[in-house]
Amino acid sequence: MKGLGITGGAGMMYGAMSAIGLAPAATAEPFRAPSLGDLVGRAPGHHSVTVLGAGPAGLCTAYELRKAGYDVTVLEARLRPGGRVWSIRDGTRETDLDGETQRCTFAGGQHLNMGATRIPQGHVTLDYCRELGVEIQAFPNHNANALVNYTSDTPLTKTSITQRAARADTFGYVAELLQKASSSGSLDDVLSADDKVALAEFLKDFGDLGSDGRYVGSSRRGYLSEPGAGTDYGTRLPPPPSLSDVVRSGIGRNFGFDLEHDQAMMMYTAVGGMDRIYYAFGRTLGSRVNFGTVVTAMRNVPDGVTVDYTSGGVARSITSDFVVCTLPPHLVERLRTNLPPAVLAALRAPRPVASGKLGIEYSTRWWEAEQRIYGGISNTDKDIREIMFPYDNFHGARGVVVGYYNTGRRQEIFEPLRHRDRLAKALAEGSEIHGDSYTKNIASSFSGSWRRIQYSESAWASWSSRSPEYKLLLQPVDRIYFAGDHLSNAMSWQHGALTSARAAVSAVHARAAGLH
Amino acid sequence: MKGLGITGGAGMMYGAMSAIGLAPAATAEPFRAPSLGDLVGRAPGHHSVTVLGAGPAGLCTAYELRKAGYDVTVLEARLRPGGRVWSIRDGTRETDLDGETQRCTFAGGQHLNMGATRIPQGHVTLDYCRELGVEIQAFPNHNANALVNYTSDTPLTKTSITQRAARADTFGYVAELLQKASSSGSLDDVLSADDKVALAEFLKDFGDLGSDGRYVGSSRRGYLSEPGAGTDYGTRLPPPPSLSDVVRSGIGRNFGFDLEHDQAMMMYTAVGGMDRIYYAFGRTLGSRVNFGTVVTAMRNVPDGVTVDYTSGGVARSITSDFVVCTLPPHLVERLRTNLPPAVLAALRAPRPVASGKLGIEYSTRWWEAEQRIYGGISNTDKDIREIMFPYDNFHGARGVVVGYYNTGRRQEIFEPLRHRDRLAKALAEGSEIHGDSYTKNIASSFSGSWRRIQYSESAWASWSSRSPEYKLLLQPVDRIYFAGDHLSNAMSWQHGALTSARAAVSAVHARAAGLH
Repeated sequence: MKGLGITGGAGMMYGAMSAIGLAPAATAEPFRAPSLGDLVGRAPGHHSVTVLGAGPAGLCTAYELRKAGYDVTVLEARLRPGGRVWSIRDGTRETDLDGETQRCTFAGGQHLNMGATRIPQGHVTLDYCRELGVEIQAFPNHNANALVNYTSDTPLTKTSITQRAARADTFGYVAELLQKASSSGSLDDVLSADDKVALAEFLKDFGDLGSDGRYVGSSRRGYLSEPGAGTDYGTRLPPPPSLSDVVRSGIGRNFGFDLEHDQAMMMYTAVGGMDRIYYAFGRTLGSRVNFGTVVTAMRNVPDGVTVDYTSGGVARSITSDFVVCTLPPHLVERLRTNLPPAVLAALRAPRPVASGKLGIEYSTRWWEAEQRIYGGISNTDKDIREIMFPYDNFHGARGVVVGYYNTGRRQEIFEPLRHRDRLAKALAEGSEIHGDSYTKNIASSFSGSWRRIQYSESAWASWSSRSPEYKLLLQPVDRIYFAGDHLSNAMSWQHGALTSARAAVSAVHARAAGLH
Repeated sequence: MKGLGITGGAGMMYGAMSAIGLAPAATAEPFRAPSLGDLVGRAPGHHSVTVLGAGPAGLCTAYELRKAGYDVTVLEARLRPGGRVWSIRDGTRETDLDGETQRCTFAGGQHLNMGATRIPQGHVTLDYCRELGVEIQAFPNHNANALVNYTSDTPLTKTSITQRAARADTFGYVAELLQKASSSGSLDDVLSADDKVALAEFLKDFGDLGSDGRYVGSSRRGYLSEPGAGTDYGTRLPPPPSLSDVVRSGIGRNFGFDLEHDQAMMMYTAVGGMDRIYYAFGRTLGSRVNFGTVVTAMRNVPDGVTVDYTSGGVARSITSDFVVCTLPPHLVERLRTNLPPAVLAALRAPRPVASGKLGIEYSTRWWEAEQRIYGGISNTDKDIREIMFPYDNFHGARGVVVGYYNTGRRQEIFEPLRHRDRLAKALAEGSEIHGDSYTKNIASSFSGSWRRIQYSESAWASWSSRSPEYKLLLQPVDRIYFAGDHLSNAMSWQHGALTSARAAVSAVHARAAGLH
C-alpha cells in the first residue's frame, strides 16, 4: 500500500520510547489501559517531579511519569482538570478578568466545550481516549443541511442557502467551466486526448452535468419537500443562480475547511464533553493533583527546583528533582524565577490569541424539527463567523447551540462586551441566518473569551515552531522542562499538548536514567 | 431565507393529514410520542384492518391506524419485525433459498445491518425515531482516512490511497486546470473580469494552489507521520502523482456519492442496529403482530377481505374490512388472489434487484489502531465494490466490517457462492486494499444476498415511479391497498416504505370516514 496517511499514535510513540524503558508490555485482548505493573523498566533510583498545570500537557506528563514510577505532584490553580479543555455545565461559575461573573444553568446532560471540541483521527488524543476508557463519538464538522450566508455583490448576498446547494452549484459550474475549456482545446498543451476523456467522465459526475456539459441544477441541491409516496415526486428548489452570481458570491469560500488535514471528516469528540478525558487522567492520579494551588515562583536550586505556591491563601513551597512547567508561556514569564533573560524573552514571544465561544441553550431543538439540521456548522462572514449545532442528545428536549466561535479580529469585537451584549449580537446575526426560531425558546446562555479567562489569558499561542525562541524553550533550563501545545506543531490542539508532554517525559526520563 | 432545503417530515405530513382528523394534538416539552389519547378525531364506527407484513411499511401502517382506533392485525411470516431492515446478531440463524444455513456467532454488542443502514436527515425515518424514542447516532458515510483502490492504466492502478489524498490531488489539479484556462482568457466569453477574480480566489483555496496557480501537493494529502512536539514537523507523503496520472486513474470517480441528496453527510443510523426502530414499532402493537404467519391467499369478498395463512402449520383465515398489503410485489403475485389480470401484471413489473452484504467480525480493531480509520467507506472497482468500517464500539475489543456491499452485476457474482467462498473472495480482494491485517484475527462472519432470502427474494424493486403499472398499484383493488418502498420515490429507503404506509393509512382512513 502506497501513500497511506497512517500515523503512529501512542503505539508508534511507545515504540520510540521503548529504547529508554518506558514502553508498556503488549496488552492482551480485550483492551485494557496500561498500568504500573505493565512497564518493562524504570529509571533507577527515586525521582520526584513537580508538574505545573493540570491541563492536557500537565496531566499527560504526570500520567506517563507515574507509569515509570516517578513521584509526581501536580499543582493546578483551578479547581478542575483540563485547562483550556473546559466543558461548561450546570453549576459552572466563572468570573472573568473584567470582573463579570457567569453562572451556567444548563439542564442536566447539556454542555458547551468552551475550548477543544474536536479530535482528528490521526491525533494521539484518540489513543488516550482508548487507554483511559473515555468513550468517543462522531463530531459533525460538516453538514450538507447546515447553511452558508455571506455578503456579496450578487443577488445571493446575505441569503441563507444550504451547504448542500452551495456545493452542488459551485461544483456544477466549476465542472461546466472546466469541461468547456477542455472541449474547446484550450488546455491541449497539458491534457492528452485520453486525459480529456477521463476528465470529462469525472466532471460529468462531479458537477452532475447534463449530456451537453451544462450545469442546470441537480437533485443534489436538495428539495423544498422530500420525495415520498406514490406520485409525490418532491418539490425541487428553484433553478440555481447564474454562474456569475455563484462564483462572485463566494458561497464556496469555506469548502477548503473540510479538506484540511486537521478538519476533514470523520472527526470525533469525547462523549459528554471533551473535559471527560482530563477527569479520566485525573482519576489515575488521585490526590497527586492539587487543585487551587497558585504557583508564584519557580527557581532552579542546587540539585532540584523549588516552586512556591499558595493554597487556600497559605504560602507553600515544594522542592523536587525536576519541574515540568505546562503553564502558558506569557504567564510563566510573570512568575518570580531565576530563568535566564533569553528564556524570559522567549516566553514573551508567543502572542496570545483572542478566541471564544457563546453557547445558547434552547428548550426546543428547532434546528432538527424545523430545519432538518442534525449537527454541523453554518458559515457566515458576519462577526459570529459560524454557528455549531449540537453533536449529541439528538431528538432530546433541548440543546446548546454554539452561537459563535471565532478568532482574532472577530472575537476582539465580542471580547470587551458583557455577556448579555454578546448574546444580543449573536442572536441578531444568527437570526439573519436561521430565522426567527433563533431568538425564541432560549433557556440560558454562557460565553467566554480566552484572553479574559484567568489562568489562561490566551486561546492559544501564535508563533512559529521554526523560530529561535521556540527552539530555545524546547531545551530544559537546568532541571526545568517546558511543555504544552505551544511547543508543538499542533498548536491549539490537544495532540500538541499531549505529544509535547510525552517529549518532556522522554527527556526527563532519559536524564534521570543517566543516559545523557 | 431563500432556498432552504427544509423538508416536512412527520410534522408536515400530519399537517396534511389533519384535514381528515388523524393529526395528533401539539405535544408539550419534553417530547413524548403521540398516543391514542392525543388524536383529535377518529373515523366513525368500528373498522378492522389486516396488515400483511411487519416490515417498515406494515408496522408503520398498523401503528398509525392504531392511533385512530382501528382494529389492527399484522401477519408476518418471519419471527421478527423489520423485514429487510434486518440486523444480524449473535444467535441469528438463517437458511437461504439455496438451502445453506448460517448461524451468527458475533460477540455481544456486535451487529451487521444486512439491509438498511443509513438515514438521511430529510427522511421521515428520523421523525419516527424521535416519536418512538429510538436513539440515533452519526453514520460515517465518508471518511478522509478510508481508502480508494481502482484499476487504471496509470501507475496508480490497484494502489491504495486515502480518500483524503485522492480529494486533495483531484481537486488540486482540477483547480489548477481551471485557473489556467481562466487566466489564459479562453473562458472570457462566459467569465467577466470580476468573475475571474472571484473564481481565482475560490480555486486557490479549493485546490490549495501555490501563488503561481500550480498544484504541487498539500498537507491536505495527509502525513506519513503526524506533526508532533518540538521539531517533529511530521513526515509528508511523497509528492503527488502527475496531473495526467491523477485524471486518468479516476481516483475521484466516487466523489459524487457524498454530494447526492440521499447520501451527503451528515447521515444517521439507529444505535445498536437499524432494526431497533421496528422492535420499537412492534412494542406499541404488542400481540397484534402475529409472527410466523405465512399468507397464502388474499381475496376481496363482499364488504371485506379474506386472508388465508398458516400459523405453526395450521391453516387459518381472517376477514377484515380492509387489507393493507406490504409484501414484496413479486411475492404478492404468487398468492392465491382474485386480483384483476392488470393488477397481477403490474405486480410482476418491478424487477427484483440483487444486493447483499458480508460482515466480518474481527477480534481486533486493526483499522483504528493501525490505519487510523474510524468508520467510513473504502471504495474500489473490485467485485466487493466497497468496505464499510464500524460506526460504533470505537476502541472496543472487536468489530464487524462490511466486507462487501454491492448491487447488480457485482452481487450476482457473490450470490451463487456458498458463504465460505464469499468470505474467501472478500478477504482476497479486501486484503489487496487494506493489507495483511484484513485476513487476520477473524472471529466469525455472516453474509446474505437478498434475492436468496426467503420472504424477500429481492433487495428492492427496480421500476419507474412514472410507469402505468406503478400508478395502477397506487389504487386500491376494492378493499385491498398496497404499500411499500416500491410504491414511493424513495425506493430501497425506509422513508419510502414509511411514507407509502402513511399514504395507505390516509386512503383507508378517508374511505372509512366516508369522505369519498
